[in-house]
Amino acid sequence: MSPLRSYVSGTWHTPSDAGTPVHDAATGEEIARVSTTGIDMAAALDYGRRVGGPALRELTFHQRGALLKALASHLREHRDELYALSAKTGATLGDSKFDIDGGIGVLFTYSSKGRRELPNDTVWPEGAVEPLSKGGTFVGQHILSPMHGVAVQINAFNFPVWGPLEKFAPAFLAGMPSLIKPASQTAYLTHRLVEIIVESGILPEGSLQLVCGSAGDLLDHVTAQDVVSFTGSASTASQLRAHPSIVRNAVRFNAEADSLNLSILGRESTKGTAEFDLFVKQLVTEMIVKAGQKCTAIRRAFVPAELMDDVASAASERLAKVTVGNPASEGVRMGALASLEQREEVRRSLKALMDVGTVVYGDPEQVDVVDADAQRGAFISPVLLRVDDAERAEPHQVEAFGPVATLIPYTSTEQVIELAARGEGSLVGSVVTGDKAFAREVVLGVAPWHGRLLVLDADDAKESTGHGSPLPALVHGGPGRAGGGEEMGGLNGVKHHMQRTAVQASPTVLTEVTGQWVPGAPRSEGTHPFRKSLAELLVGDTVVAGPRRVTEEDIAHFADFTGDTFYAHTDEEAAAANPLFGGIVAHGYLVVSFAAGLFVAPEPGPVLANYGLENLRFLTPVKPGDELTVTLTAKQITPRENADYGEVRWDTDVTNADGESVAKYDVLTLVSKEQK
Amino acid sequence: MSPLRSYVSGTWHTPSDAGTPVHDAATGEEIARVSTTGIDMAAALDYGRRVGGPALRELTFHQRGALLKALASHLREHRDELYALSAKTGATLGDSKFDIDGGIGVLFTYSSKGRRELPNDTVWPEGAVEPLSKGGTFVGQHILSPMHGVAVQINAFNFPVWGPLEKFAPAFLAGMPSLIKPASQTAYLTHRLVEIIVESGILPEGSLQLVCGSAGDLLDHVTAQDVVSFTGSASTASQLRAHPSIVRNAVRFNAEADSLNLSILGRESTKGTAEFDLFVKQLVTEMIVKAGQKCTAIRRAFVPAELMDDVASAASERLAKVTVGNPASEGVRMGALASLEQREEVRRSLKALMDVGTVVYGDPEQVDVVDADAQRGAFISPVLLRVDDAERAEPHQVEAFGPVATLIPYTSTEQVIELAARGEGSLVGSVVTGDKAFAREVVLGVAPWHGRLLVLDADDAKESTGHGSPLPALVHGGPGRAGGGEEMGGLNGVKHHMQRTAVQASPTVLTEVTGQWVPGAPRSEGTHPFRKSLAELLVGDTVVAGPRRVTEEDIAHFADFTGDTFYAHTDEEAAAANPLFGGIVAHGYLVVSFAAGLFVAPEPGPVLANYGLENLRFLTPVKPGDELTVTLTAKQITPRENADYGEVRWDTDVTNADGESVAKYDVLTLVSKEQK
Repeated sequence: MSPLRSYVSGTWHTPSDAGTPVHDAATGEEIARVSTTGIDMAAALDYGRRVGGPALRELTFHQRGALLKALASHLREHRDELYALSAKTGATLGDSKFDIDGGIGVLFTYSSKGRRELPNDTVWPEGAVEPLSKGGTFVGQHILSPMHGVAVQINAFNFPVWGPLEKFAPAFLAGMPSLIKPASQTAYLTHRLVEIIVESGILPEGSLQLVCGSAGDLLDHVTAQDVVSFTGSASTASQLRAHPSIVRNAVRFNAEADSLNLSILGRESTKGTAEFDLFVKQLVTEMIVKAGQKCTAIRRAFVPAELMDDVASAASERLAKVTVGNPASEGVRMGALASLEQREEVRRSLKALMDVGTVVYGDPEQVDVVDADAQRGAFISPVLLRVDDAERAEPHQVEAFGPVATLIPYTSTEQVIELAARGEGSLVGSVVTGDKAFAREVVLGVAPWHGRLLVLDADDAKESTGHGSPLPALVHGGPGRAGGGEEMGGLNGVKHHMQRTAVQASPTVLTEVTGQWVPGAPRSEGTHPFRKSLAELLVGDTVVAGPRRVTEEDIAHFADFTGDTFYAHTDEEAAAANPLFGGIVAHGYLVVSFAAGLFVAPEPGPVLANYGLENLRFLTPVKPGDELTVTLTAKQITPRENADYGEVRWDTDVTNADGESVAKYDVLTLVSKEQK
Repeated sequence: MSPLRSYVSGTWHTPSDAGTPVHDAATGEEIARVSTTGIDMAAALDYGRRVGGPALRELTFHQRGALLKALASHLREHRDELYALSAKTGATLGDSKFDIDGGIGVLFTYSSKGRRELPNDTVWPEGAVEPLSKGGTFVGQHILSPMHGVAVQINAFNFPVWGPLEKFAPAFLAGMPSLIKPASQTAYLTHRLVEIIVESGILPEGSLQLVCGSAGDLLDHVTAQDVVSFTGSASTASQLRAHPSIVRNAVRFNAEADSLNLSILGRESTKGTAEFDLFVKQLVTEMIVKAGQKCTAIRRAFVPAELMDDVASAASERLAKVTVGNPASEGVRMGALASLEQREEVRRSLKALMDVGTVVYGDPEQVDVVDADAQRGAFISPVLLRVDDAERAEPHQVEAFGPVATLIPYTSTEQVIELAARGEGSLVGSVVTGDKAFAREVVLGVAPWHGRLLVLDADDAKESTGHGSPLPALVHGGPGRAGGGEEMGGLNGVKHHMQRTAVQASPTVLTEVTGQWVPGAPRSEGTHPFRKSLAELLVGDTVVAGPRRVTEEDIAHFADFTGDTFYAHTDEEAAAANPLFGGIVAHGYLVVSFAAGLFVAPEPGPVLANYGLENLRFLTPVKPGDELTVTLTAKQITPRENADYGEVRWDTDVTNADGESVAKYDVLTLVSKEQK
């Protein structure tokens, strides 16, 4: 059997030696070999930087998003093949869907976020323009640019598809090429995934590389423009974090390590309540999905002391119904661990836990299996422990990375919050309770030690995505033992691959740099900008309209017509007593309505609709007799990739006869790409 | 002379030994001693965690902001005393103002940001509520919580006041106590600063500690909940980053190191242009302010090859007018380096640069000084070099941390962008040009290597805050050699001291956790909420009003009255052809005006004004005959600390008879704290 090929520097590289064997988790048969012998890691990084980076940076965020969508759709068509291969990692069909469909889902989410939340441009201005001077000639804004290196992604064995894809998607959307190094044990599945991706031809050349096997001297060659992301054990994370190249070059290093995640049962949730059942059900689910080989699995189950026995017996009952065996066989609910070495690891950790606790369910050395050989395959029974002395260190520190959890009693809210912190940082925790005040107290109490917290109750149980599922819109990662990193979290995950730069300049230059019009930059009057298609419109195109006098009668009529008879518009005496107005003022809604009447271009044209309005502030009261002028300026133009129109954001400034702004806001419109 | 006391664990600690002497930079006289002998660093950290953290976390963001403002005002009254002490560090009065007023300015800015941009609460919900389910019973949102450790701040010698304050302000606003360790050379000034702060009694006990002298075993005791921020040399940054406690606990480590910052003169900016003069003037200013001992000072001045001679002679002319000497003396524009050791360092670096370049101005070994002894004080001449072979490594890598800069020629935009990257990461760069396209190309080209970029031209020069000044609203820090950190940057600097946690829950529980009403959580109808003062109002308080029928006549009348005669409201045939409407629709502004007419409570009451509106989206066209109902729900309540009113944000949902939302937005109001 020749080793898996790696995809580096634009070609499939065949290792020059025999490689290290990898075995089917369920049968023990050799199914692949891995080796990186002969791969020039420095050249691979250089290739990513020279070829992949520039190709990606030429695309806009929307274009990158569209490619992610195309890739996700393509992979969806190849799911069955991936499921079949996934079974060899010990995964049941459910486990495989979690991994494979989950990964594809991340691609879809980032595709959608890129197209909805980012400009259709290569520059990403972040946050508001900061005024830095009184006269307005000097302003500042942050911009985000893709880093010019490679996103080096070192993945764990437990999610051979989701792992690489959840790191790849935000890097790609940011405009950074990826180099994926899967864990050897399950590299054959990641390898097939990358083959499918490369064969599809969807991605720009150089945007994705793969090395199957040892990382060799890869990290020796990383520079300040590269990003290293790691998922795996806390000890390996520490080693990598202290790697001389990473330290010397201040390389961004993001670690996501398994941790002693908790689930807390509320004190009112006694046997018979919905939450009691939810707690037990989720605990068992988290033990058996992926045979408990999830960084997010529950390890510490905190239970009100008086409910320990009830939980232990209810969980045991459920666990007794779990069929272990060949993951490809019907009816099997828990497959194998990833390898025999993993099983030895789990047994070692179990021993340490059993020194201070007792086994409630299962036998670390023995398990009945279906359609498989319990010794040749890496099978193990789910094991539920209880440690009745919550003060012992072991249950808070020893992690058995398999179908293992420990019940720990607590007697007060304060105590359980204090015990939670002994995990020294976790990816996720659950609070299962119908008591909302308890939920608040625990969530706020344990939040500093957690990247994610799930509150499970009768209200959300039906739709909950569960304790163990990181979601692309939410942060994945936790402090301390969990690695101190952050992945996904919506656009934050994209920002991890970008450099934030504060740009200080005149409004004119800032407009030039960001492509978005900044107040103070020149405005261009001429043809009414509502008469221009996206092909003709430029940022800075402006219409100034007015003045229109607001009369006492207008205000009275508007009050009458709309029903908005607030005293400040209708009662001179009461309005005079208002500390902000000191007399009758026009309705804010009247001001914006009159402004629309001024800037409108009535005949059919490229502007299809005003679909919204943002950041409206009423800055100066409008009194009867005031004259309003409106200045509307194209601020941001966002053509859609797959439509014949796009969005235009207009800076809107309504001023009075003294030139004071009475209202400022952004008008949002849909505009055709071409004149009809 | 007994050593400076440290302020730890709530008391002033006097060292038990003689300590290490520190000298006046300008006279060489001993002026202080430092020692941390006898300080229990573990106990100090523990004190911060036990006493300072809880005290701070009880305060809301607005309350912390108010304390920062009080502190800033107090320090402003003690400026003169600090200026006088600052002169002993070698600083001129201008230098001292840069340091001291700059630091006080950071306190004011963070005070203001805290009160304007954050909730008046202890919980900070970040970003939008993410829908995680179709039925809406399961949602997610990020919250930020102060970390439960100590912000350990290791500062550089060059800014003994600004340095600690720019780190302290965001930590304090976040709710984290600080432990400040100044550099020994100028610790006496930081020491006096902290004395003034402690004497003022403004800050909660435990929120600020000081250790003057060696850090000892301080870092051995940091945990995952602490944050370590360092400013200083790249080599020390690397050592600290690899510290076993930091690595093992994944401690957040933020480094800001000096770097080879650049300034680029545009090719069109020949002698006689405003930008030529600005470039030369800024270059000389950056050389002499703080005697060039600024992490942000310009080290590499890139000049179009054909302008090298002109720039060299213009800069030399300006430098010839710089008087060096006793920083306290009138007319002196450049003081001393911080110590004789620093001068030796600078001379060593200069030697390496002179191997590949030539001196344009100055003599590293000799300088004329006013009112001082050039040998006993740490005086040195400004030295301008030129290296005509831009390909040499030294000018891009060797930093002389004093009044030293190097002119380097370039011949194309592409080349100068490539040369910029050879600095391997900088805090800041300037582009001095009147050519806006060149500015854009260079800014976008060098942004990945920079934390901040200044475009200087005739438009913004008058109001520019200059190359060397980090601003609290903008990020300070750069990639790679600059340390890879980020300080300040507005609220981002606060977030560095907080844990981001994704909370997944039902809308009801999420509302309970964040204190902000989440759509889907219960609404409470009863007394019209506009009749409730802040003392009575609760999030979730709701008014449902309507229905009101929108007639064809209403639309025609509104068009006529406002002048908004857009065809979709007035011309049946044209409106039918619009792809979004398919017939006459009501104006969006009519819909929100009618909604206001429905939810208004006309009589005088606690609601003072509707001051704005946010996130308005028109979701479904409103046709003649549609009936509108509006549901207005109190979403966020923000009482002001120093006023008798506050802000209330109202979730607003306008629906039609089918229950579809036709418009959603937030209404912003000012509401009295009490009934009048």
